[in-house]
Amino acid sequence: MTIGYPKGAHRPSHFEPTPSSRSFASRGMDFEEMINLTNRYYLERGRAVVHKKPTPIQIVRVDYPKRSAVKITEAYYKEASTTDYNGVYKGYYLDFEAKSTQLMTRFPLNNIKAHQIEHMKACSAQGGVCFVLVYFSKRQECFLLPLDFVCEYYDHLVSDRQSIPYQVICQKGIPVSQTLTPRLDYLEAVDHYISLKGELYEE
Amino acid sequence: MTIGYPKGAHRPSHFEPTPSSRSFASRGMDFEEMINLTNRYYLERGRAVVHKKPTPIQIVRVDYPKRSAVKITEAYYKEASTTDYNGVYKGYYLDFEAKSTQLMTRFPLNNIKAHQIEHMKACSAQGGVCFVLVYFSKRQECFLLPLDFVCEYYDHLVSDRQSIPYQVICQKGIPVSQTLTPRLDYLEAVDHYISLKGELYEE
Repeated sequence: MTIGYPKGAHRPSHFEPTPSSRSFASRGMDFEEMINLTNRYYLERGRAVVHKKPTPIQIVRVDYPKRSAVKITEAYYKEASTTDYNGVYKGYYLDFEAKSTQLMTRFPLNNIKAHQIEHMKACSAQGGVCFVLVYFSKRQECFLLPLDFVCEYYDHLVSDRQSIPYQVICQKGIPVSQTLTPRLDYLEAVDHYISLKGELYEE
Repeated sequence: MTIGYPKGAHRPSHFEPTPSSRSFASRGMDFEEMINLTNRYYLERGRAVVHKKPTPIQIVRVDYPKRSAVKITEAYYKEASTTDYNGVYKGYYLDFEAKSTQLMTRFPLNNIKAHQIEHMKACSAQGGVCFVLVYFSKRQECFLLPLDFVCEYYDHLVSDRQSIPYQVICQKGIPVSQTLTPRLDYLEAVDHYISLKGELYEE
């Protein structure tokens, strides 16, 4: 597990976190909240503009009470046609889905919908930087999984299994540093991902 | 007024549309619908991935009826913190707001919220391509207004008026061709905008 500290120091990967090192990550903050805090931090410092998209809702009935705001009285959740997050960073279009799992040994792929993969593939074809952020909540470890890597599993190229083993994620994912601020420094991992993509293009 | 035809021919700018040339634009399709159709067209042909963001909604009360979908029984519209549209095109991050007006002689700026301008400025600082699409519904004319141009008026640099005169938009906006498919070929105008930005950077 890689834990980044505010000054940029990193623990070696074999480091087993002590209870105290887990404390600020254990305050019950969920993964979405961590990402939203991080995005606000990036926005305030002019490092990137990334927002979570609102959940799409099908509105069926609406009331117009006198002298007050329009009240929606019947509505249902719709399935999102895209991913949860997108934005812009150093001229790059970023697009990602964020998922956490309570499992220790694997990341189940049924967390990600087929049309979300299709959406990310379409964005990637336009030059976008697309990935999945995975959070192992019991391990308190976060990884950036490049889209191509996820697709290898998703499209059953590597195996028929419906999940990616944790050990493979440790090898092929890019660890995301967790600090006090930003909570999850995923842009550092994005930089790494972009440099890897650059190397691929140069080949 | 510039009307683009499917084969790419353009009418001269002094051309006054005849009733027949207006017919397919007059079927009551609203501006948002035109953009959504255009985005679907671009997506299907792999030209760009641009989506309208869902309207953010504050959910207050939810019912869980037996054996059916979660029902939202009280909710309110929230103000969007960003613009309506964003996406990726040829590696560029696109971010824009789309507004139509029934006025003939000017585009009122109170249509655009201050935080939307702030959002586009932040995206632009990250290298995003940001603009406003304006539709004069009675004229059936559409223009792409570069963010810097909108800001000149918005930030009261040019004048104290709360709107941009139509004549100025004709001079400084980039006309958007209207064809059968795509309904509003705004990527053509985006290409033009990007080339203008490129020239600015070279100076």
